[in-house]
Amino acid sequence: MIIVLKPRAKESEVKAVAEKIKKMGLKPHVSMGVERTIIGAIGDESLLKEDQLKAMAVVEKVLPIMKPYKLVSREFQKENTIIKVGDVKIGTNDIIVMAGPCAVESEKQVIETAKAVKKAGGHIFRGGAFKPRTSPYSFQGMGEEGLKLLAKARNVTGMPIVTEVMDTADVPLVADYADILQVGTRNMQNFNLLKAVGKVNKPVMLKRGLAATLNEFLMAAEYIMAEGNHNVILCERGIRTFCTHTRNTLDLNIIPIIKKESHLPIIVDPSHGTGNYSLVSPMSKAAIACGADGLMIEVHSNPEEATSDGDQSLTPKSFAKLMEELRSVAKAVGRRL
Amino acid sequence: MIIVLKPRAKESEVKAVAEKIKKMGLKPHVSMGVERTIIGAIGDESLLKEDQLKAMAVVEKVLPIMKPYKLVSREFQKENTIIKVGDVKIGTNDIIVMAGPCAVESEKQVIETAKAVKKAGGHIFRGGAFKPRTSPYSFQGMGEEGLKLLAKARNVTGMPIVTEVMDTADVPLVADYADILQVGTRNMQNFNLLKAVGKVNKPVMLKRGLAATLNEFLMAAEYIMAEGNHNVILCERGIRTFCTHTRNTLDLNIIPIIKKESHLPIIVDPSHGTGNYSLVSPMSKAAIACGADGLMIEVHSNPEEATSDGDQSLTPKSFAKLMEELRSVAKAVGRRL
Amino acid sequence: MIIVLKPRAKESEVKAVAEKIKKMGLKPHVSMGVERTIIGAIGDESLLKEDQLKAMAVVEKVLPIMKPYKLVSREFQKENTIIKVGDVKIGTNDIIVMAGPCAVESEKQVIETAKAVKKAGGHIFRGGAFKPRTSPYSFQGMGEEGLKLLAKARNVTGMPIVTEVMDTADVPLVADYADILQVGTRNMQNFNLLKAVGKVNKPVMLKRGLAATLNEFLMAAEYIMAEGNHNVILCERGIRTFCTHTRNTLDLNIIPIIKKESHLPIIVDPSHGTGNYSLVSPMSKAAIACGADGLMIEVHSNPEEATSDGDQSLTPKSFAKLMEELRSVAKAVGRRL
Amino acid sequence: MIIVLKPRAKESEVKAVAEKIKKMGLKPHVSMGVERTIIGAIGDESLLKEDQLKAMAVVEKVLPIMKPYKLVSREFQKENTIIKVGDVKIGTNDIIVMAGPCAVESEKQVIETAKAVKKAGGHIFRGGAFKPRTSPYSFQGMGEEGLKLLAKARNVTGMPIVTEVMDTADVPLVADYADILQVGTRNMQNFNLLKAVGKVNKPVMLKRGLAATLNEFLMAAEYIMAEGNHNVILCERGIRTFCTHTRNTLDLNIIPIIKKESHLPIIVDPSHGTGNYSLVSPMSKAAIACGADGLMIEVHSNPEEATSDGDQSLTPKSFAKLMEELRSVAKAVGRRL
Repeated sequence: MIIVLKPRAKESEVKAVAEKIKKMGLKPHVSMGVERTIIGAIGDESLLKEDQLKAMAVVEKVLPIMKPYKLVSREFQKENTIIKVGDVKIGTNDIIVMAGPCAVESEKQVIETAKAVKKAGGHIFRGGAFKPRTSPYSFQGMGEEGLKLLAKARNVTGMPIVTEVMDTADVPLVADYADILQVGTRNMQNFNLLKAVGKVNKPVMLKRGLAATLNEFLMAAEYIMAEGNHNVILCERGIRTFCTHTRNTLDLNIIPIIKKESHLPIIVDPSHGTGNYSLVSPMSKAAIACGADGLMIEVHSNPEEATSDGDQSLTPKSFAKLMEELRSVAKAVGRRL
Repeated sequence: MIIVLKPRAKESEVKAVAEKIKKMGLKPHVSMGVERTIIGAIGDESLLKEDQLKAMAVVEKVLPIMKPYKLVSREFQKENTIIKVGDVKIGTNDIIVMAGPCAVESEKQVIETAKAVKKAGGHIFRGGAFKPRTSPYSFQGMGEEGLKLLAKARNVTGMPIVTEVMDTADVPLVADYADILQVGTRNMQNFNLLKAVGKVNKPVMLKRGLAATLNEFLMAAEYIMAEGNHNVILCERGIRTFCTHTRNTLDLNIIPIIKKESHLPIIVDPSHGTGNYSLVSPMSKAAIACGADGLMIEVHSNPEEATSDGDQSLTPKSFAKLMEELRSVAKAVGRRL
Repeated sequence: MIIVLKPRAKESEVKAVAEKIKKMGLKPHVSMGVERTIIGAIGDESLLKEDQLKAMAVVEKVLPIMKPYKLVSREFQKENTIIKVGDVKIGTNDIIVMAGPCAVESEKQVIETAKAVKKAGGHIFRGGAFKPRTSPYSFQGMGEEGLKLLAKARNVTGMPIVTEVMDTADVPLVADYADILQVGTRNMQNFNLLKAVGKVNKPVMLKRGLAATLNEFLMAAEYIMAEGNHNVILCERGIRTFCTHTRNTLDLNIIPIIKKESHLPIIVDPSHGTGNYSLVSPMSKAAIACGADGLMIEVHSNPEEATSDGDQSLTPKSFAKLMEELRSVAKAVGRRL
Repeated sequence: MIIVLKPRAKESEVKAVAEKIKKMGLKPHVSMGVERTIIGAIGDESLLKEDQLKAMAVVEKVLPIMKPYKLVSREFQKENTIIKVGDVKIGTNDIIVMAGPCAVESEKQVIETAKAVKKAGGHIFRGGAFKPRTSPYSFQGMGEEGLKLLAKARNVTGMPIVTEVMDTADVPLVADYADILQVGTRNMQNFNLLKAVGKVNKPVMLKRGLAATLNEFLMAAEYIMAEGNHNVILCERGIRTFCTHTRNTLDLNIIPIIKKESHLPIIVDPSHGTGNYSLVSPMSKAAIACGADGLMIEVHSNPEEATSDGDQSLTPKSFAKLMEELRSVAKAVGRRL
């Protein structure tokens, strides 16, 4: 960490900062420049309490040198993490597609959609039994009943299932049914939930928060891994910006950066990322083109009757067409679908 | 709700949309313009499923007319909600100041700071026992031990206490000690937590999420109220923007809007809102000047030793000075402190 | 346009709004709902003065129905605009690549880089003679001397050239040398400049502003077209968001939307869009995959000596490799490069 | 400047970076840490070309230590800049209020409004003759005719006038009439315009761009000052964020920061900053409370007939009331109005 002092810092002030650094267990390295005195703190940066240093009146700013994340970092583990879910492997050269309805609504809807997803070449079935909704008056999901329907879809199609868990209290229940536990956007920094899924022996798919920086996203994954669960799949699903032409702004730029910074697989959700079914196809292709390991796509056997997110769901037919087109793009960038 | 159709919509398509609206329980009102056909849906707008309408290929856009919130709205309740906590009333003409350290660290720190807050005229004591931290390796709070120290501070000073609850499982425990339950920024859309505190017989202070719109903020309060707990205090604490000159961008503009839209009291947290102790004083004054009902301010008996947020904490001395200055500003806008 | 009145609007107030609409030359259509009175204004929406309506105390909000842009819109012109620059056509099925250094620095640099761009298959040569720089103390470009070097590069390679014009006073000079006039990000709403290039008989490449919405971007193009110059190429180059992992957030989501809304060609600048040379390759592929008509890429014969933007420039070698890879992606989505 | 190298940098790579720094005229100071090698560049940081360093493959990141601005900085000049315009002084303890219509529309409107502004205690009269409008089809201002009406308003009331200049070519004309030249939000980084007004012997009011960082804002002022014109007034008028409850998000947080970083006066425009007349009063008070040196407020003799921005204009009556209230707030923070 580099501590930059204000202009004309007194010797006693410089000393006080250096002492503070020593007390934290690091070695201060003072460098008097022409206009500023700068102090480097050499040693284990994680011991440094940045806020305490900033609270000293003589400190102008504090510049971290090291990245805050460890277990998630490519420096910590060179090879890609490969996550096995049934017969599916996530994080290899193969593109993995998770698809299904936003919310589980009925047996008919679930089984029909699951069969269509399977037929088109989808690998993992998605569906929400617990739904985070902006309004308390909106449909909140079928709960355990929905989980049972998802399990039935797995039985029928053989596809593993991924579904969201919203509360620490529900983790055991959801883990009983799901093959992958999803932590949603609004819970990306629900640290108790992160810890809870970190103790479970099932892969976790962690969706990026609407206002999450790269560091915050990776640190959320670090929370899960620090509890022992190293099977984390990251998911970019759009951030909040000034733009209103899409519901959120899908930030594909983070894909190649995550692949460089971390060994964890990352997938993209263009359905929530854009909020508009007509954008799912082009943005899915773009996601594959820039290096995503997979996709999560909303498919509904009848979007005009969906209880939630009908406007961003593909029909089985348009999903099958998309899968076909994605195969070419995957091939063009040396991947396989 | 107004449904705008794409240009050159066929009669059969117009009919299909109208039928769908009828099926949802509203009355369609078709108006053929020169360039667009527009359909108004007359009746209870909450019955309309916007996503399903948008999923129809002929629909260009859907424009809601009504506001999604009810219980929180000024239309629902004309008079200000006044929340009583011990002898303190929030939501009257009097400005209420909550102050204390970011995290509870020790008995000495808590009692010293609480006495200083009381002496300077603070009304409610704040302090975190459960701390949401970006890193799993940072201090996570003292837990119940911290709650006990807060209770001791209450005994010593007579001030009610406000403290954060992060998990549904902890709600009963925290409610046992706290006078006001705080729901933090990162949990503003942790809907299970909102429902849980909505069932408790204690006031809730709800902090605005970093990326929360006005509607989302008020709908989060609606979640709490819909469970029966009508004692909700809103708190603006900064949003995430492109600016880096402050940790977050304190959005004071929302204060007069909330006062118009809702009957709930709203306070401002300039400490988290700016992340810089030197900005706490000017932004506190600005908050009062534009109509906030109170403030939440970080005060630490020794900021340079704080385990968390030392850089944004005031010393007891600077807090006392600020309180003095705030009195003038409050008076200038017809309030009292 | 739909005018929503506040609850309990009096008859006289409703009448006043209706009268105002009539005075503006439209037909008011009053609809009294259960909770709100709504007035539709039927006729030429461009005659309506939204601000004046909002200034009336009884008006709650005004919802536009029509899009503000005309000449740029797909409704106005169904077929893609195809822009011819020498032998190059922009807006067809062929992907067009513009490449070259950020700033023109010397004859050697320009000619070397131009030859490398040509050899790798680039179509148009780019280079800045007038440079918009954040600091007045940074290199501001070679001016006319730079334009001459660009012309020399055109003579040597046969490639048309595109270069930025920053001031109305420079338009004739730049138009004398350039084949395409570039209007930069910071000048996207320099309306006098837009009008000036709108009067020139050369194609204009308009870069999206850092904070420009879809409407503002298209309306800036409308300014140029309204003056008679219909040869406008749009360019997405990143917006400003809270993210700091890239210099800007390249918003690829806007590509398929622009293709739907407008007949104008749109290209992507991943060099400025990300500010990092290692992201240029993946984001270029993503841009083609989601439907862009071309790319603008910074290439420098020696990035480590560049006067500007060396950190986001490709070397001739990495550019040639990228062109090779882009051919596969273009083919995969039915385009040609 | 601090250059952080990637892990496991080779000696030859470290040397290459050090050599590059030397060639730029600074002294490299290499510090081999446990996990990273860091190189400090000692000397005149303005000589360093950050982009060139970042273009070297071994460089992980570059951290600037010094601020990029000079003439505008409080370090360069300790005392507040005080700008004299006629009898008015901006930058003293007195709060200065500029007020008037968004656009000049007619003699009657201008003179009536100017008289009302004067009577209520306003100091400077504002009005636009050249109007930057999003649409080419909107009223673009009266041009020189409008400037003449403003001059008439000055004759009648004695108030100096401030008006916008949008193009370098118009600078002499506008400077002939105006007492203060305004550079608008959309032109904050129109560098040619900044240079042009920097050569004029009239004060300049520079409005912050919608997406401008603190550094960019101050560097825009630096452009003007670098040309010799040191009479720059800064103006905060709202930034673009995800919020839609206000047209822009007025960022009052920047006020106390600017007062610390710079000696230039800063005023606030709550009319454009919020886009809503009902927010002008509370946000004006907040601006004064947090340290602004003045305000710019839209007043229109008849907002419902305004050609532009009627929705954010005060009537003469509400402006007079606001001035009264502002006096109390100014007094409460030790200022005078």
